[in-house]
Amino acid sequence: MNISELAQKVAAGDRRALARAITLVESARADHRAQALELADALRSTQRQALRIGLSGTPGVGKSTFIESFGLMLVAQGLRVAVLAVDPSSARSGGSILGDKTRMERLSREPMAFIRPSPSRTHLGGVARRTREAVALCEAAGFDVVLIETVGVGQSETVVAELSDLFILLLAPAGGDELQGVKRGIMEMADIILVNKADGDLKAAATRTRADYSGALRLLRRRPQDPPDFPKALAVSALEDEGLANAWEEMQSLTEWRREHGHWDRRRAVQARHWFEEEVRQGLLAALTASPDIRAAMQATGDAVARGEATPDSAAAKVLAQMAARN
Amino acid sequence: MNISELAQKVAAGDRRALARAITLVESARADHRAQALELADALRSTQRQALRIGLSGTPGVGKSTFIESFGLMLVAQGLRVAVLAVDPSSARSGGSILGDKTRMERLSREPMAFIRPSPSRTHLGGVARRTREAVALCEAAGFDVVLIETVGVGQSETVVAELSDLFILLLAPAGGDELQGVKRGIMEMADIILVNKADGDLKAAATRTRADYSGALRLLRRRPQDPPDFPKALAVSALEDEGLANAWEEMQSLTEWRREHGHWDRRRAVQARHWFEEEVRQGLLAALTASPDIRAAMQATGDAVARGEATPDSAAAKVLAQMAARN
Repeated sequence: MNISELAQKVAAGDRRALARAITLVESARADHRAQALELADALRSTQRQALRIGLSGTPGVGKSTFIESFGLMLVAQGLRVAVLAVDPSSARSGGSILGDKTRMERLSREPMAFIRPSPSRTHLGGVARRTREAVALCEAAGFDVVLIETVGVGQSETVVAELSDLFILLLAPAGGDELQGVKRGIMEMADIILVNKADGDLKAAATRTRADYSGALRLLRRRPQDPPDFPKALAVSALEDEGLANAWEEMQSLTEWRREHGHWDRRRAVQARHWFEEEVRQGLLAALTASPDIRAAMQATGDAVARGEATPDSAAAKVLAQMAARN
Repeated sequence: MNISELAQKVAAGDRRALARAITLVESARADHRAQALELADALRSTQRQALRIGLSGTPGVGKSTFIESFGLMLVAQGLRVAVLAVDPSSARSGGSILGDKTRMERLSREPMAFIRPSPSRTHLGGVARRTREAVALCEAAGFDVVLIETVGVGQSETVVAELSDLFILLLAPAGGDELQGVKRGIMEMADIILVNKADGDLKAAATRTRADYSGALRLLRRRPQDPPDFPKALAVSALEDEGLANAWEEMQSLTEWRREHGHWDRRRAVQARHWFEEEVRQGLLAALTASPDIRAAMQATGDAVARGEATPDSAAAKVLAQMAARN
């Protein structure tokens, strides 16, 4: 593959080239990895930045409907919108939250939109790297907004929050007056909570739920990167297109405030450093599986430790010394 | 320090030697690490095994009172009891859950008991290694039961469960009829749930809470390492010494069953392999901070990445290549 040609096409906004480029960054093959790095380096010079919006919500909250309605609204405003999925569960199930293209049928037909399903069979660390690189490709391709979607499973929210400029939590109206078991840590990451399905029979429940979360958010410590009235909770109906324009205005005003106060750049810098350090850590650990010799030594020594023939710590010290000597 | 002499004294059950040995494994100094490994290797030949009981409970559930009453009961039965604390919060606060010796005044005066506070200023990984090695020292010193105590914070329960033969969750009676926000993952690790404070005004609430947890435990999938009636929930009063003998009988019968069915040995083998692998991983990552050169390179490259002069991934690839070449 001619990488500089691919880079030019991506930078020109060619969606097919973008799809090929993402396939390249998803590959685990060593030659593909080298090409992916070359591509990323070539595209860095575009210096383009999209608004990266992380969106988390458990199945059933209407995430697809929301992304479709919200995406179509942005496209109607002349914005180019990319949607990427982070779905660690697909690593287990082989399924994919965005695999079913019919989920966002209208948005996927828009020339200004680009939808990319989550790849299957990748571990969370791999998903994070692939998504980070895919986001950078979408930015280089000139997209204005990149929506990074995740289901609320395990650590995927943290990964998405560390990739995003804004983190949005999408919830359904609660049955009673209790909060929906949303983990405190996830609430603390949210910039805006959207209570969806504020329509029909659920409208009153959605209003109540929104008020509950507004109250809960006020109890959280204020973060320096927020204006006084954030984080906030809003009620929306993706089905009836209610409140989406308002939600987008809130996202923009929060973004403006952060840009003016230097938080935007600072957050991007912190995230870039974080991912660099994480990538080095993952690279060091990859040494454990890279060579068949080391894999075999780990297995044999692990067996001996399991049989009680050596303590975990002295066995580990010996393996580490062998690895250092081998290099 | 003469390590073989120290090993002999520890193996003879000398508590002062044991305390010195634990201080040695808590040290981060390279020469101390080497001596700690030598000591562990020397003591492996004792082949002694204690019953390792992990005990988790948030502040306020009466953990100290429980350990004191339970420990005194075991001592009265002629058993030697060691108590170790895993307290990752002490890494932040500088405090220590077992720092206050008066917490278990009577037990600490027993010649058959040994109580060791959690060291301050260690990260969770360091706490895990230190506790694992301290447990092994207590076993070599001939203790029959090693209680490993933790507060219910973050990942410390997982660490303790992966160090233990039995994992006990200590709870207080709930106010209403709801479960106390115990995370499902922690309930799934528990072999026995003990609802403490089944005395005085709280007795009825404790009985109700025990029934609630019994019901919740029945909903969990049965684990192959359990007899049909486990995990189970029991009500106890550490203050009035009620139910402790019964709890101990249940622990013994579960242990017996697991020994007979091979689960005990299998669990120990799996744990040993896990800690070996974890120790190798930690050792590889330690390369990032071991040399001032590498620390400086990480800092400088991280700065460049934060300024946007390189992508996280290509910068990481370069640093990894440099580290490999340097070895």
